[in-house]
Amino acid sequence: MLQQQGYVVGADIGGTSLRLALANMDGQVLGKWKASTEGIRDPHVVVRLIQEGVDDLLQQSSIPRSLLRAVAAGAPGVTNVDEGVVIATSYLMGWRDVPFRALLEAKLGVPVAVDNDVNVAAIAESRIGVARGVRDFVFVALGTGIGAGIVLNGQIFHGMSWSAGEIGYLLVPGTPVTPVETGEPGALESIVGGEGIKAQWRSVWRKDLTQHPRELVATQVFDYALAGDALARQVLDKSAQTLAYALYNLAIVLNCPLFVLGGTVGMHPALWTATRDILSRRDKRVQPDLLRSTLGSDAQVNGAIHLAIETANSRVLMS
Amino acid sequence: MLQQQGYVVGADIGGTSLRLALANMDGQVLGKWKASTEGIRDPHVVVRLIQEGVDDLLQQSSIPRSLLRAVAAGAPGVTNVDEGVVIATSYLMGWRDVPFRALLEAKLGVPVAVDNDVNVAAIAESRIGVARGVRDFVFVALGTGIGAGIVLNGQIFHGMSWSAGEIGYLLVPGTPVTPVETGEPGALESIVGGEGIKAQWRSVWRKDLTQHPRELVATQVFDYALAGDALARQVLDKSAQTLAYALYNLAIVLNCPLFVLGGTVGMHPALWTATRDILSRRDKRVQPDLLRSTLGSDAQVNGAIHLAIETANSRVLMS
Repeated sequence: MLQQQGYVVGADIGGTSLRLALANMDGQVLGKWKASTEGIRDPHVVVRLIQEGVDDLLQQSSIPRSLLRAVAAGAPGVTNVDEGVVIATSYLMGWRDVPFRALLEAKLGVPVAVDNDVNVAAIAESRIGVARGVRDFVFVALGTGIGAGIVLNGQIFHGMSWSAGEIGYLLVPGTPVTPVETGEPGALESIVGGEGIKAQWRSVWRKDLTQHPRELVATQVFDYALAGDALARQVLDKSAQTLAYALYNLAIVLNCPLFVLGGTVGMHPALWTATRDILSRRDKRVQPDLLRSTLGSDAQVNGAIHLAIETANSRVLMS
Repeated sequence: MLQQQGYVVGADIGGTSLRLALANMDGQVLGKWKASTEGIRDPHVVVRLIQEGVDDLLQQSSIPRSLLRAVAAGAPGVTNVDEGVVIATSYLMGWRDVPFRALLEAKLGVPVAVDNDVNVAAIAESRIGVARGVRDFVFVALGTGIGAGIVLNGQIFHGMSWSAGEIGYLLVPGTPVTPVETGEPGALESIVGGEGIKAQWRSVWRKDLTQHPRELVATQVFDYALAGDALARQVLDKSAQTLAYALYNLAIVLNCPLFVLGGTVGMHPALWTATRDILSRRDKRVQPDLLRSTLGSDAQVNGAIHLAIETANSRVLMS
């Protein structure tokens, strides 16, 4: 009975910070922990940080180590979930074929699960977020770049080589069609990603057309659009139009009734409203719901908690 | 043992013809049967035709009725496989919510399965065609219109409301973006479908630019492109480019390693070669194989045979 009541830790490995949370087997968060990953590229260092965080969290809550049942982590890259290997991180960390699950299990002595961070966020939306109980949906994370976590039959759909949902590369009307090199922004994210929106603003900016400065971040552009700036509105409209084309395509292919927008750019109310309006005018047969994540930046770490709970319930440590 | 050796019938319901084939439980075809469906809209008439065809086929092969174990049919529209209901046919027949499985089972007295005809063709490619043994692939049928059968984990992926893979509506660079009404050609098929290619040819045609007539079908345009006609080449290149964008998008979303082209337009060697070349130049990370169906127009009826075999092996008649 005590064993059933154990604890798990969920980890969100980002390019700038590592966030951990301790939870009970109901997913209730008992403690949080954070560290900077700025400049850290070595996976062994990340593993040591996670170990440190796990120890701190258990101590803070006076929980004996023996009650830790599993740990799960969201990694910022394509991840082979079966093998627990991070195949490639897209930026900053530069990981290639890192056996992250094995490294963590060796240090922590409990079962570990690893998945891509967007997929982990999609798990959170599916278990405790706005997509709770929805069989098929797509979680779209719009931050600096764009990625999607595809949930089919209640499970993450990973694809043959673990890279399903890399929608930053989608080609829709208005995106550039020139092939891009690995590491460069994809066609869709060059318009609708955080960096793409910054670049759009820079390219249309003229001193006599707006009172706002040439260097803005995406959410500022959207704020100014809402406040009535016509130039910012133009960038918002192009972004929403392009995102709507991409979501429409996903809805066509997957026959998917729900999209959840996450990430700092994706959760902005201006982008959400404009994209929803465009989709509603498009095609009567294809009318997916478009919701904003209510979990926000907690989605990843919450998803990792739920992945850890499911891991504890289904798997014993192979070592 | 005799029961294990029974027989099945596969049916392909088209807008112009109904094709049936009788097979043993290994999928070996023992007889074929065909009737015109020109002008026939009433599903009860189609059911009676199928019954007639089944009787003819059994008699021709001197097989007693008691050895018929199942029948499966591919219908030209969105089909609820669980309920056996054809929700909507896209053209010609105008069916809406037709309980086709129940109608057929009542007439035939054996278990019946119904699915969309493109999905049924994808089953054939998966079981006996060029995609045999491939876990995830997409069968793309290019005829008058465009549809896709998506196979994930060896099974047809149908989507929440049975319309996954309706890729004729995809929006890619170069397709029109105006919303279309139900029944009108979708954005992608208005360029790459048989009718779209005819229309492309008509719109670029000028007497002084080509020796060929203004009214051609898609495969003729492609034939003339192969024979060196520059104007036909231009239409081929635009078609291949647009198709390549669509397949690239599907590969990105589904992380799918194989596409099989079927249908009279899709199987044309000129379109296949040109599309493959464009895809190979696009993105080193995304390089799906592109194969042509070897089953051709037999794919649907063969897929129906295999669906019937699987139905016989897994289901008893509910009546």
